[in-house]
Order: sequence, then C-alpha cells, then structure tokens
Amino acid sequence: MKEKPARLVEQLISGNRRAIARAISAIENGEGGSQELLRSLFAKTGKGYRIGITGPPGAGKSTLTNKLARLYRKQGHRVGIIAVDPTSPFTGGALLGDRVRMTDVELDDGVFIRSMASRGSLGGLSKKAQEAADVLDAAGYDTILLETVGVGQSELDIAGAADTTVVVLVPESGDGIQAMKAGLMEIADFFVMNKSDRPGADQAVMFITMILGFKGSDVELSAWKPEVIKTVANDNVGIDAVAEAVERHRLHMERSDLLNRRRQERLERQVREIVDEHLHVDFWNQERSLRLREGLAELLDRRASPYDVADELIKDFRMQN
Amino acid sequence: MKEKPARLVEQLISGNRRAIARAISAIENGEGGSQELLRSLFAKTGKGYRIGITGPPGAGKSTLTNKLARLYRKQGHRVGIIAVDPTSPFTGGALLGDRVRMTDVELDDGVFIRSMASRGSLGGLSKKAQEAADVLDAAGYDTILLETVGVGQSELDIAGAADTTVVVLVPESGDGIQAMKAGLMEIADFFVMNKSDRPGADQAVMFITMILGFKGSDVELSAWKPEVIKTVANDNVGIDAVAEAVERHRLHMERSDLLNRRRQERLERQVREIVDEHLHVDFWNQERSLRLREGLAELLDRRASPYDVADELIKDFRMQN
Repeated sequence: MKEKPARLVEQLISGNRRAIARAISAIENGEGGSQELLRSLFAKTGKGYRIGITGPPGAGKSTLTNKLARLYRKQGHRVGIIAVDPTSPFTGGALLGDRVRMTDVELDDGVFIRSMASRGSLGGLSKKAQEAADVLDAAGYDTILLETVGVGQSELDIAGAADTTVVVLVPESGDGIQAMKAGLMEIADFFVMNKSDRPGADQAVMFITMILGFKGSDVELSAWKPEVIKTVANDNVGIDAVAEAVERHRLHMERSDLLNRRRQERLERQVREIVDEHLHVDFWNQERSLRLREGLAELLDRRASPYDVADELIKDFRMQN
Repeated sequence: MKEKPARLVEQLISGNRRAIARAISAIENGEGGSQELLRSLFAKTGKGYRIGITGPPGAGKSTLTNKLARLYRKQGHRVGIIAVDPTSPFTGGALLGDRVRMTDVELDDGVFIRSMASRGSLGGLSKKAQEAADVLDAAGYDTILLETVGVGQSELDIAGAADTTVVVLVPESGDGIQAMKAGLMEIADFFVMNKSDRPGADQAVMFITMILGFKGSDVELSAWKPEVIKTVANDNVGIDAVAEAVERHRLHMERSDLLNRRRQERLERQVREIVDEHLHVDFWNQERSLRLREGLAELLDRRASPYDVADELIKDFRMQN
C-alpha cells in the first residue's frame, strides 16, 4: 500500500468512493498495511446490517440482490453489495476483464457494488468478503448485501458473515433436496422460492415447508421459524415481502439477543483467523520453507513421512520462540 | 481409537476390508491415533495412481466413476473409490442414513468404495479424502478414483490430490462457461463431455476445444494438450477412451518427470497442513480459548478490535514457548 492506512480510513469514513474501492482492493490483494487499515476502521463498524444471499447457480441471486438494493434505496438506506459468486453477473465479467458490469442500481451514489473473484483464490475468500463488508460498514452503508453461490463450503461461510441469511431456490426438480444435502437448511433464516411463476413452484414450496416443519417440531414456540417466500425477481414480484421478512428476522434477533450472540461468534471467528494467519506466516519463514523443500526428495522416496518432516520443523520453531 | 494403530496398519496392508474401513472412519472423525496410523502406513503408499473426477452436479460423475472402475477391474486393477460429492449416489444416501448405496461394482472384492460426507464438515475434507486415498494406496489399491463435485473450492483441492484430473461436463447451455469461471480449465488434464448423445454436444465440445486452443497457443509443442472426450457413461460409451486418455496422461507425466513434481507438491502441501493444524491445536488451549471468550464483550462494544485481541493472545503464546 502506497497510501497511509490512517489517511485512507479517514477518507473512506467520509464516504469517498475511491478510498472505499482502494481499501477493498488492498484487502483483496492482501497488501501490506491492509491489516492496519482494518484495525483502524474497526471502531466505526457494527452499524451496518448484513444480509447474506446464497443459493445454487442460476437461482437468480443477483437479480434478487439488485431488486432488494433498489427497494432499500427507496426506503432511504445506503446499500453496499459484495458479490462473491463466480456465476453472478456482478462478478461474471471478471473472466472477460470487465470486473463489474454496470447495473441500474450502480449508477446511484447511495449504492456501492463490489465483486470479489473466487477464481484462483485458495480459501480465505469469505474472510476477505467479511473484511470488505467491514469497510462498507465503516463507510456508512447501513445495509450490506453479501451474495455468494451456495454450493460447497461457501454457503456455510456466508452464514457466518451475515446477520440474516436468505437462501434462494428455484422450482427445479431436486433443488430442495440439493439444498438440504448441502447444509442450506441449517443456515437459512428464510427461503426465497424465486421464479415462482414456473411450473412446480407450489410443490417446491410445499416440500421445503414440510422439511422445515419436520425439523422444527422439537423447538420452543418462541424460536424463529424459517418460512418460504415466493418471488419473481425479474418482474419485481415479492421483493417487498423479502425485505419484510429480513426486518422481521432482524427484530426477532434483536429482541432475543441473538443478534449480539451471532455477532460475537463472528468476532470470535475473526480473531481465530487473524491468529492462525499470523502463526502461519511466522512459521513459514524463508528458512523453514527452504528446509521443507529440501526434505521433499526424502518424502517422495518414502524415507520419511510428512509427519516426521512436520515434527522436525515444529521442533525448530519451538527452539526459536 | 481403541485399536492399536500398528495392528490396524498391519491388517489393512494385508487387505482386510474391515481394517481399511475402520482406518478411514478414524481419519474422518479425527480420532486420536489416526495421525500415528497415517505415519505408519506412509511407507507403503506411493504405488496407487490417483485419478480425480470432478465437474458440476448432474454431469454424471458417479456413473462415469462406476463404469471406469468396472473397466479397470477387467484390466486386473484393484480399484479404490473415494466419493466426496454431496450430489453423488455414493454419498447421497448419507442424508437418509444409508451411507453407501450398493452398486454393481461394490459387490466385487477388488473394489473398495468409500463415501465421505461434506455436510457440516468445516473445511479439511480434501485433506481427509487424501488421507483416505493414502489408506487405500497402502492397502494395495493401485487405481484410486477421487470423485468430487466441481463447484467452489473443492475442484481446485481435488486437483491437488490427484495425479490426473478429469473434468466431466454435459452439453447444457453455459456449462462450459461455468467451468471456465470456476477455474476448471486450469486444473483439467482432460475433459469428458458426458451425455454426448444429447443435442448441442458437438457445439459444447467445439466450445471447450476452442478455449483450450486459445489458452494453449503460447505453450511449447512438447507440453500436454488437454482434449475433450465424448462419452455416454450410462450406455458405457467412450469409457475405454477415457481410460486411454488417463494412461496417455500418466505416461506423459512419467516421461517428463511431471508426476514426481506433482507428487512432491502434494507432499509439501501435506506437511504444511499438518504443521498448521498442529499450531492451531497448540495455540488454542483451554486457557487462551477462555481468554478469547472473555474478550468478546469488548469486541462487541468496539473497545478493542479483533487485531488487538489477537495481538494479546499471540504475545502470550510467545511467552509460553
């Protein structure tokens, strides 16, 4: 980072869009100084409400995100969008060079859209997405939408980063079953059945509702009950109902102190990640990295096992600390 | 682990199926002793050839895996299958309790099928899959098929675990583009266009070939050139061509010493993972975990940042080492 983190923080807190973009780039590229940046802006975070939007490719997550952003704008909110979905039109351009495609919401100064590429990134993307959300939060965006594709590990990670998690499905055969298998049932605060003008929508909603009822039969009456909301995001149908469900969930979370608990868990995870990263960097200095590389031939010949080599390196680390 | 690792290793090396299953379970559940187990069997690994089979849900990866296994059996190989795909019929049963569904290959004693659930597992699954492959390798399975769903991070991980990586696609609109975006182009040693009796198959193959030609224009003539093989796995069409391509790739890797290089990289990654896990466990002892939990209220109130809390804990760790 060429700029002073403190100066950048000052600028981004005052809402300077270039400073915000610069800060997120620094985080994305893991530039030196980005940790100082995050440390200094942390005090300004905690006001933005974070909504995770996840689901399988093709469910219409970005359209829903887009329409939701427009609705929140009309309600006077400042909206930040972070899209970490390789199939999203926000990020889809990454491949062709045009990192962020212009959308109608993006021309509005009260909306900040940022896409983060998952291609080639070896893990850690959800951490970076969360740090980007911290930047937007500190910059005064009170509503932050985190869009990710919900396959694999990412949907579980996004649930950790969001205050409310919305799982978007479409009435395709098997979509509900897939969602269940992928662990989406556990993380959804509610479901959106998008493209619900398609045949099979009612059955799909019924299927999810059934599973939810089945799962929920042993929880207290006061507990939150996820529901399924039908939308046709393309036609702007049901978007208000989604926003209302987010609001209901937010109120429930606040009243039951669940919001603080969820945020504490997030902060706890964040500390753990910072520590692990620090230890990793500290351990793998040039000398130990070199030693490992020198031991590879032995490993290949089965003269030593990876556990033996690891033991040796750990012993060395202990001696130097 | 109740058994002695050494005894279990002895049994599994002699081909005892129950010992193999037991060892993989110990790894999957992270039981104490499983590291000792892996350490002792390591010397017996390195003979099995590992083939990664990945691609989007619904591409027919498990059918292809199944048919390939049958072909390899006919050729006299002993075949291990590890399926870490939430959408695979091998693993799909996990949800309903019948962890592994019986398939025709499974009744054969020369085939060992193991599914590993990705649901709920917070990362580390590719590491465990690789360790399971080590068990099968040590037990004398000379051909090991690793099946994973190719969305998100998993496909990149599986490429690290395999000697040859096969990416399976179907002629659906956009499948090729998705594959490209997800980073599958980089990891595929070759492509299989499955369900190639469907309309659009030729165009889909052409599209992939075009992209491959585009990417390959700047590499040397001697370099490996990924190709696209058409199959209809359900009808056993093209399976022999897939096996031939694997063999061609294996020979290329051996001749150019790429196989050793790839395996060295795998071993290097393995050492790094062992070290990181060790450091993590060592750091997060009861005392420091408690301290972190006590600091959460401060974090929530923004009196301290996660970076400050992490700094304190790291300082403490240094003093104790």
